[in-house]
Amino acid sequence: MTPESAPAPRERSFRTLVQIGTSLDGYIARPDGDIDWLNERGAQAGDTGYETFMAGIDTLAMGRNTYEKILTFGFWPYEGKRVAVLSTRLTTDDPNITVHRSLDALLDHLQTAGAENVYVDGGQLIQTFLRRGLLDQLTLTNVPVLLGSGIPLFGPLDHDIDLTLRETRALGAGFVQTTYTVTTAA
Amino acid sequence: MTPESAPAPRERSFRTLVQIGTSLDGYIARPDGDIDWLNERGAQAGDTGYETFMAGIDTLAMGRNTYEKILTFGFWPYEGKRVAVLSTRLTTDDPNITVHRSLDALLDHLQTAGAENVYVDGGQLIQTFLRRGLLDQLTLTNVPVLLGSGIPLFGPLDHDIDLTLRETRALGAGFVQTTYTVTTAA
Repeated sequence: MTPESAPAPRERSFRTLVQIGTSLDGYIARPDGDIDWLNERGAQAGDTGYETFMAGIDTLAMGRNTYEKILTFGFWPYEGKRVAVLSTRLTTDDPNITVHRSLDALLDHLQTAGAENVYVDGGQLIQTFLRRGLLDQLTLTNVPVLLGSGIPLFGPLDHDIDLTLRETRALGAGFVQTTYTVTTAA
Repeated sequence: MTPESAPAPRERSFRTLVQIGTSLDGYIARPDGDIDWLNERGAQAGDTGYETFMAGIDTLAMGRNTYEKILTFGFWPYEGKRVAVLSTRLTTDDPNITVHRSLDALLDHLQTAGAENVYVDGGQLIQTFLRRGLLDQLTLTNVPVLLGSGIPLFGPLDHDIDLTLRETRALGAGFVQTTYTVTTAA
């Protein structure tokens, strides 16, 4: 058991959702963070449902790595959304985000800020939410390529996590998009 | 480059196919080889296409681990099929199989024996066939569970492998079955 395992259940008034592209061998990026393999093919995938998904999201939660990746875009893609960053070290006066030093502080913020539909972004934060039983819905877009190495979406768990299939569909470019809800442990 | 990488292309008169169940996090078995998570749910999955798939197979190729797993079943499930086992060490007088000491010897055997549709089974052999550009078709059945650890289907590669989506469908029990063909490198 890691210290973060098996916490007391906490009350939550918000839903947590992930929508993310992975290679068929389960990577969200190459070892250096590159997502060229996703972007190249994504241009031919047609409507991936991202706009519809984002329209239902009022808040994003992410780790520092993901935040710093977004800064490299040169524009802020989340105008009008609440963005909460989990980082023990980040100091910033960026008015677009709030920074939280612990997962509990992040969750408290989401609750008191009145978040309703929270997009959990970034590999590490997704794994943390899964391990803690805090993730409600997962939409995976499988890209038809094997990379052989990279940053994995999923990580170690101390027990199985059951999922319920909600929808699966083929997009363009050989993408397959599948939505699961996470079955809450008894 | 590992020694087995980038071999000279070899002529092949047979097709190679994989049909395998994996957890959503990409494992074909728990660390000890257990597939309880697959069998439990498989009973509710309905027709997984396995019978149809096997009806089209004349030959199986597998490694020693997979062969020894099959021996524990207490019956021989591949009556009427050619079964070729790759192992540097196995000695046996089992009349159901032939044993081959190297991948090249195995491939030579498949060719000279007149194999047409070869089911490649077992994690290590699948990875070897993928790395060597010897796998033609891959049918994955994704089981809606995260295990957190186990024997992974996919492994390291020294270059990307492109796949072409052929079919995807939802089975029962939340299983999603997807067939890809492997795009031959130029």
